[in-house]
Amino acid sequence: MDDDRTLTASQELSAAIERALAEKDLPAVTAALAPLTADEVITVLERLDAKRRALLYRLLPKTTALEVFEGLDATLQGDLVRGLQDEEVASVFAELDPDDRVALLDELPASVTTRLLHRLSPAERELTAAVLGYPAGSIGRRMSPEYVATRPGTTAGQALERVRARLSDAETVYTLPVLDDRRRLVGIVSLRDLMSADPGTPVGEILHEAYSARATDDAETAARRCADLKLLALPVVDAETRLVGILTVDDALGILEEADSEDQARIGGSEPLRRPYLSTPVRSIVRSRVVWLLVLAVGATLTVQVLEVFEDTLEQMVVLSLFIPLLIGTGGNTGNQAATTLTRALALDDVRPRDILKVLAREVRVGLSLGLLLGAVGFLFASVAYGVPIGTVVGLTLLSICTMAATVGGAMPLIGRTVRVDPAVFSNPFITTFVDATGLLVYFFIARAVLGL
Amino acid sequence: MDDDRTLTASQELSAAIERALAEKDLPAVTAALAPLTADEVITVLERLDAKRRALLYRLLPKTTALEVFEGLDATLQGDLVRGLQDEEVASVFAELDPDDRVALLDELPASVTTRLLHRLSPAERELTAAVLGYPAGSIGRRMSPEYVATRPGTTAGQALERVRARLSDAETVYTLPVLDDRRRLVGIVSLRDLMSADPGTPVGEILHEAYSARATDDAETAARRCADLKLLALPVVDAETRLVGILTVDDALGILEEADSEDQARIGGSEPLRRPYLSTPVRSIVRSRVVWLLVLAVGATLTVQVLEVFEDTLEQMVVLSLFIPLLIGTGGNTGNQAATTLTRALALDDVRPRDILKVLAREVRVGLSLGLLLGAVGFLFASVAYGVPIGTVVGLTLLSICTMAATVGGAMPLIGRTVRVDPAVFSNPFITTFVDATGLLVYFFIARAVLGL
Repeated sequence: MDDDRTLTASQELSAAIERALAEKDLPAVTAALAPLTADEVITVLERLDAKRRALLYRLLPKTTALEVFEGLDATLQGDLVRGLQDEEVASVFAELDPDDRVALLDELPASVTTRLLHRLSPAERELTAAVLGYPAGSIGRRMSPEYVATRPGTTAGQALERVRARLSDAETVYTLPVLDDRRRLVGIVSLRDLMSADPGTPVGEILHEAYSARATDDAETAARRCADLKLLALPVVDAETRLVGILTVDDALGILEEADSEDQARIGGSEPLRRPYLSTPVRSIVRSRVVWLLVLAVGATLTVQVLEVFEDTLEQMVVLSLFIPLLIGTGGNTGNQAATTLTRALALDDVRPRDILKVLAREVRVGLSLGLLLGAVGFLFASVAYGVPIGTVVGLTLLSICTMAATVGGAMPLIGRTVRVDPAVFSNPFITTFVDATGLLVYFFIARAVLGL
Repeated sequence: MDDDRTLTASQELSAAIERALAEKDLPAVTAALAPLTADEVITVLERLDAKRRALLYRLLPKTTALEVFEGLDATLQGDLVRGLQDEEVASVFAELDPDDRVALLDELPASVTTRLLHRLSPAERELTAAVLGYPAGSIGRRMSPEYVATRPGTTAGQALERVRARLSDAETVYTLPVLDDRRRLVGIVSLRDLMSADPGTPVGEILHEAYSARATDDAETAARRCADLKLLALPVVDAETRLVGILTVDDALGILEEADSEDQARIGGSEPLRRPYLSTPVRSIVRSRVVWLLVLAVGATLTVQVLEVFEDTLEQMVVLSLFIPLLIGTGGNTGNQAATTLTRALALDDVRPRDILKVLAREVRVGLSLGLLLGAVGFLFASVAYGVPIGTVVGLTLLSICTMAATVGGAMPLIGRTVRVDPAVFSNPFITTFVDATGLLVYFFIARAVLGL
């Protein structure tokens, strides 16, 4: 009876997995798996071939997955790990869209993760990280599983022995994560600490509190954290703070270098080049710049429309057109100053999105001060050259534009962060277009009011 | 007779140093010292008080300084080192202007340097670095003298013993510079290498080639080097490649963080804030931005002057003014894209100033391609809205402006580097102003030609 049920379930599952492999209908497999106990799953697994076994195993919830893994014999454990490393299996998970990935793939138990990532090349690791469900760009795909861990009860001398045994293959031996019995990160100890301590001292007495990153965290964020804290290595953990890997400062620096290149390019309004400048084909350079340039140019047609509205005013007073580049240029500069300052403050964690009201209050004051200064200079300059009425218009416009530009420029990066757009992308080009168009509106409204046009 | 001469020399020197302390006329001391042998200098030194002795000693040429130091007895050596660490003595050298410093202060022998910097706090080190003649902003002022060095003939086991003895006070024990008998850097060995090797292996057999920085190098350049090479520590040497200190990756990261904040601020056209944004007074924020804003605004008056020249043309065809923001905006964007790409390429050493012709050739082609694309779009857009003649003007202007802006934008950072201005400062604001003014010139020349005005 029981055997019958298992057999039927197994047949259904085999059929479901057949379909899943053909149609990639993973939710059906998950549904079929839901009612089974760990023992039942093991019975099913034992009857499948390596690839299907891996696929099915990966769709188990974390707790079941741990129980199942521990229930398998050592040979089958090894087979399963190799199956999960298989390129074909990986490709099934790599092609999942991010939402499905979150819905379908629970974390694997840390013990399985560690075995899965062990002794892989970085390229193989990147592939396998997709199986683990770590999203593209996450630190889970860049961390190394070749850490040397120790336990609080281990003595410094024993830990040193462990370091000696791993000298040739560990990513770093200078920073040792300290784990409890359930692989949870409880602290960190440096090789220097271990060498300084009496050999009999338990690691638990000399460990330090550990900073860490989540495997699903953005790689750049984790790398920045490692660099900002000036650590030689940052442990990477899963949702239950179980250790799954380590990020060394040299890898962190590599990640930051890539990220900085991208940010710089985007601040300048182009897509990053993937190769050194002189060996990138002109065609690729053009491609990296043309989209942004077109988008910004289309945005700039807004200025044409604004000016068209005021074409009559311009006809009456052509002199007003002389100040257009100066006024919108100053607005753009003021906006970019504020945006750059706040983008940097965000990156350094000096400011968070919830500080937006404080930032607005400060930037209004900064903008007003700058506007008063520049407005006064502009008033004098334009009054001398074109008379006091024009001077008044120019002065008042500078005052308004500076205040508006500083406020908008300061707020943009925070808004960008809130809606999860890279602040560097969101801010400068947007600000320039926005400030150009609204600046012209302000200019002509002031001109009409002051000059009575 | 000999005694007489020495006595006279001594009296002259004492008088000269008296004056030097009062008037800071150090060249006079240098001149008085020039004819003396090392033994004679020692005789003179022994008769002076501690501060004068330090002052005088520091003005000796390097070779004499080494001979003199080795000729002094141990007590006097210690006194001399303490004298050189004296705040009053340091202030004499700190106030030298950079040219005088280069002219007057030869390097100190590395053996003296090391003793001088030993066990000082970072603040004291910074002060003493002025005595050493390292210019402000150089890595000599930021490096740590607390390295653990070893020699090629030392065994791995002996080197490990040395590491153990220095665990509590060395800046790093993970990277050991390897020095020859004359303190010259001949390689580097990691703690990991030492632990992996058989204890009897000489360090000379397991050392690696060492990268290093000169103590007078710019701190940011040295830090960038350490980060780019992904080293845990970079040895710092004097002109004769003798080791004087070490830069660890955590200190390098601190230096880069400061430098990046400055660069970011300057790209955005403001001076860096020295404090977190929210705790910087509004007054200071205004001050950090106002100077650049004024400079750029004054630069932008160029556009007013250009437009004034073409005021008649504008009166005849007010419609031309509608495109001013779009045209100069696109020029600015194109220029900034090129400038940002080349600034980054310079920072990554993908491009050097001598590649300028290659860069120009590429950017002309990139600019032409972008100009053809945007010009075609602009032609269509403006032709539909304002007729083919205006469309032709807008299209041709976009073609010209994009070509010019990409070329100028690409060349600026290289020129900036050549004339030793930070490329980040030189490029974007300059380009915008330049492209705005010349873009308008091009626009109106094309308009006159095409429209027959």
